Amino acid sequence: MKKLEERILRDGVVKPGGILKVDSFLNHQIDTELCYEMAKEIHELYKDEEITKILTIEASGISIATMAGYVFGVPVVFAKKAMSKNISDNVYSVEVYSFTKKATKNVIVSKEYINAGEKILIIDDFLAMGSALEGLSDIVKQAGAEVVGAAIAIEKAFQPGGDKLRAKGMRIESLARVASMSDDSLTFVED
Amino acid sequence: MKKLEERILRDGVVKPGGILKVDSFLNHQIDTELCYEMAKEIHELYKDEEITKILTIEASGISIATMAGYVFGVPVVFAKKAMSKNISDNVYSVEVYSFTKKATKNVIVSKEYINAGEKILIIDDFLAMGSALEGLSDIVKQAGAEVVGAAIAIEKAFQPGGDKLRAKGMRIESLARVASMSDDSLTFVED
Repeated sequence: MKKLEERILRDGVVKPGGILKVDSFLNHQIDTELCYEMAKEIHELYKDEEITKILTIEASGISIATMAGYVFGVPVVFAKKAMSKNISDNVYSVEVYSFTKKATKNVIVSKEYINAGEKILIIDDFLAMGSALEGLSDIVKQAGAEVVGAAIAIEKAFQPGGDKLRAKGMRIESLARVASMSDDSLTFVED
Repeated sequence: MKKLEERILRDGVVKPGGILKVDSFLNHQIDTELCYEMAKEIHELYKDEEITKILTIEASGISIATMAGYVFGVPVVFAKKAMSKNISDNVYSVEVYSFTKKATKNVIVSKEYINAGEKILIIDDFLAMGSALEGLSDIVKQAGAEVVGAAIAIEKAFQPGGDKLRAKGMRIESLARVASMSDDSLTFVED
């Protein structure tokens, strides 16, 4: 998506450790007009599937997912990061390792909100190692529902998550795919 | 807002300890159409103010705030709950006590995203004791910006936060004001 790529080039900041900061328009401050345009683009990509629900993870996936839910006309569920190890029987739960934070968290979704047979689109802001996406996908399968695919704002295509999950058969559409980044340059995967 | 009140009556669940669970449409699963209608209602209430930015707090304020930001045509900033006590110089920070979780958290906003002179609308899903709203308001003042007012989805009007902050001069518009609730009944404040 041209507009997102241009925005990353203009306002993204590369930090040590392979961090791409997009705080000014996606992650902390949200450009709501761009958010809506991303939602329309995601709808364009998945409009022929009969999506019944969108699943994301708190906190920074919620903006795009909510806007996309509105465009698709479906509810959004956001998975919660649980501190506690006391996970109740009423939730689907999965452990997700964050490479950025170097910590494992339980990610939970109440069993009430994903039903067997549903067709789920997973949305997130970033895809790098793929652990969050894999965890969300696992939760959908625990519920007996189907992962139709994933829509990601920014994929770090130089990290293995996207290719690994595509190789397992998951449809993943990323609105911007970063091929390489350093202090003074950032390139995208050519279409 | 009639539609929100009806939804609370239909799908809200009162839990011990004064908890009103609205997980099925606002807090975990989001009814995106209702979310858009709440955003339009908030715009109706504040459209004559020259709002430059919306401020909310992660995670469950983000949906309504994003949709409202889109309707107003302004960016949204979401304050983050920081685990660490090492707060950098680059953020505005305030301590907020959660009565639900019985814990104090640092709430932070990067200094880049609220500027002196801005006119800020604060949006949140719940207002009860008012500590989150007071904290967000404090951050806006630290930045030298103005709190035009707050828009809340559900106010527990039987708890003191709303009245306390109104008495200090803050404009607070709540889309549903719960007057009382128990296991088997829930009433709203009459307009």
